[in-house]
Amino acid sequence: MSDTTNARASRVSGTVRIVGAGLLGASIGHALRSHDVDVVLSDASPSQLRLAIDYGAGRAARDDDAPNLIVVAVPPDVTADVIQAELEAHPDAVVTDVASVKLEPYQELRRRGVDLTRYIGSHPLAGRERGGAISARADLFIGRPWVVCRDEETRAADLALVEALALDLGATPLEMTPEEHDRSVALTSHVPQVVASLLAARLADADADALQLAGQGVRDTTRIAASAPELWVQILSANAAPVVEVLDALASDLRAVSDALREPDAPGARRAVADAIRQGNEGVERLPGKHGQNRRFEQLIVMVDDTPGQLGRLFGELGELGVNVEDLRLEHSPGAQFGLADISVAPAALRGAIEGLEARGWRIAGNTND
Amino acid sequence: MSDTTNARASRVSGTVRIVGAGLLGASIGHALRSHDVDVVLSDASPSQLRLAIDYGAGRAARDDDAPNLIVVAVPPDVTADVIQAELEAHPDAVVTDVASVKLEPYQELRRRGVDLTRYIGSHPLAGRERGGAISARADLFIGRPWVVCRDEETRAADLALVEALALDLGATPLEMTPEEHDRSVALTSHVPQVVASLLAARLADADADALQLAGQGVRDTTRIAASAPELWVQILSANAAPVVEVLDALASDLRAVSDALREPDAPGARRAVADAIRQGNEGVERLPGKHGQNRRFEQLIVMVDDTPGQLGRLFGELGELGVNVEDLRLEHSPGAQFGLADISVAPAALRGAIEGLEARGWRIAGNTND
Repeated sequence: MSDTTNARASRVSGTVRIVGAGLLGASIGHALRSHDVDVVLSDASPSQLRLAIDYGAGRAARDDDAPNLIVVAVPPDVTADVIQAELEAHPDAVVTDVASVKLEPYQELRRRGVDLTRYIGSHPLAGRERGGAISARADLFIGRPWVVCRDEETRAADLALVEALALDLGATPLEMTPEEHDRSVALTSHVPQVVASLLAARLADADADALQLAGQGVRDTTRIAASAPELWVQILSANAAPVVEVLDALASDLRAVSDALREPDAPGARRAVADAIRQGNEGVERLPGKHGQNRRFEQLIVMVDDTPGQLGRLFGELGELGVNVEDLRLEHSPGAQFGLADISVAPAALRGAIEGLEARGWRIAGNTND
Repeated sequence: MSDTTNARASRVSGTVRIVGAGLLGASIGHALRSHDVDVVLSDASPSQLRLAIDYGAGRAARDDDAPNLIVVAVPPDVTADVIQAELEAHPDAVVTDVASVKLEPYQELRRRGVDLTRYIGSHPLAGRERGGAISARADLFIGRPWVVCRDEETRAADLALVEALALDLGATPLEMTPEEHDRSVALTSHVPQVVASLLAARLADADADALQLAGQGVRDTTRIAASAPELWVQILSANAAPVVEVLDALASDLRAVSDALREPDAPGARRAVADAIRQGNEGVERLPGKHGQNRRFEQLIVMVDDTPGQLGRLFGELGELGVNVEDLRLEHSPGAQFGLADISVAPAALRGAIEGLEARGWRIAGNTND
């Protein structure tokens, strides 16, 4: 993998054909239209296509269209078919796709003997909880990684065109092999989805009383369990082998903790549990934070009345104090008419933020330098 | 379980003795001091005790102290010993504890033949990521559930005293048996901790490149994996049986999904995966939201420059528009100098918020009524 942000070779121009006018396809269309690129849209659903065109994501196809770049943005289970059809129908165009699994369509096309010289798979790490052309937005890809998978046959000019697409849309192209990509997203996206879903599924039949004790921890851990089953069946099936590998390792880890807790006073049992929690500490520390770095921020917790304008006053005053809010989390207080705003700031800004807010009457409930 | 919020029987008065001046003990001390209750503190660590007293959580013990209520707030592994010692040393006092596991200390005391008439276990569902007397705060319990475990021996006046403690501190007392409590927290707190830790542990040895693809989903799913190993070994060991039961069920669910994905095209395989995701949908829907209700909010997504004052301006203008922010989440854009503020508002406020913000020049990147 290499970060090619600075190697700006070209901009996308001419005609781009987008097959699949759902969230990703229509968002790419909107973004390219804002750069005055000629965008041709195609979709198996006439109503989805009409919506995307009505919203300004591009125009309908004509017989004399001569796209130089084709973006396949269809569901995973038809991605290989559509790539093949587009390569055959447009012998001069570079074809990419944006499916969230990269090895299976590539292997399927190889099995069929399709010439893949002009095909470069890609995957923008972007999405929303709602899909469809009407949820599309031109800024969907800004600041996101966009994986690009070339192989030994790939021509430099074709690669530059796909990377230019990512750059034009504000994303950061990252080169990976299909195998690297699929193993990476199995770990960072697909398995977390399965785990969140299965953990949340345990709550489906729980006593209502038990759920009264749920706090922010279980809410965070299960948030993505609200995702759509149809899409996830396709993603997980298409990336089955790397997902199974991580799931099996995880099931084995679960069994080990469970076995240790069956006899918590046996020799080594508590150490096994402590090691699991400590390895979790190490893993979570490695996740990149804001701006793609492992920057560590200090936090302060401010009490905020649950009435309109209070958060505004708080952030307005932080702005007056010159303090940039790097992240924040509102803590819920079930039954209470106020919240706790957990605010992350640069370490150098912590002291000034606390003193300034206290001087203005805010109650600081705690900070990480306590 | 019954909610006794409205059954206000008494207020805590006289002398309350708190054993263990860590986060919970010192926070209870601060809150009771603010109600002019005489608070006596005790701690095995002289330096922790001195800190708590210096910060105003209470005073040092004297020989002639006659507490009417004793709160045991020590680590789980010494809770039973301290409860027994306090019952014996103070034959007229009601004794409660705030340990996060309720059955094990109760059974241990029963095994020892201790008269438990004056003991009522309890558990405030409150905490912070940082512990110790210096992190204590009087408002820690406001709006939180506080489980109270009585048994058939419990006298009504004693129960009222423990519930008055919860109410005085702003919490909502909930009556449960120790078994109900422990099964509930296994499901809503202890197992989510194990799962988050094990999932995060899988990231500990991952390629740095793979972690570049991590998004908000895996960050949320693993956030609580940052918790302290020492405390969690005690909690999990003390509540081992209910935790093992849920962990085993979860490991079996994981195996089922893993087996289905081993042959994703076998009959029934995709349905098994889809069912798991859909049951996750159902489970996450049941989690209580803000104000303890399953209220559903609408969301809008606003683009915010990553400079001081921008969030302030946004929330200030939302305040001027009369829009109360029910929840919010900042989406990180690795590498980009701006963020997306995902704001939850009451359904009736959505349209006005969008129109008002757009009129003031904000870019709305999407909303749940799209």
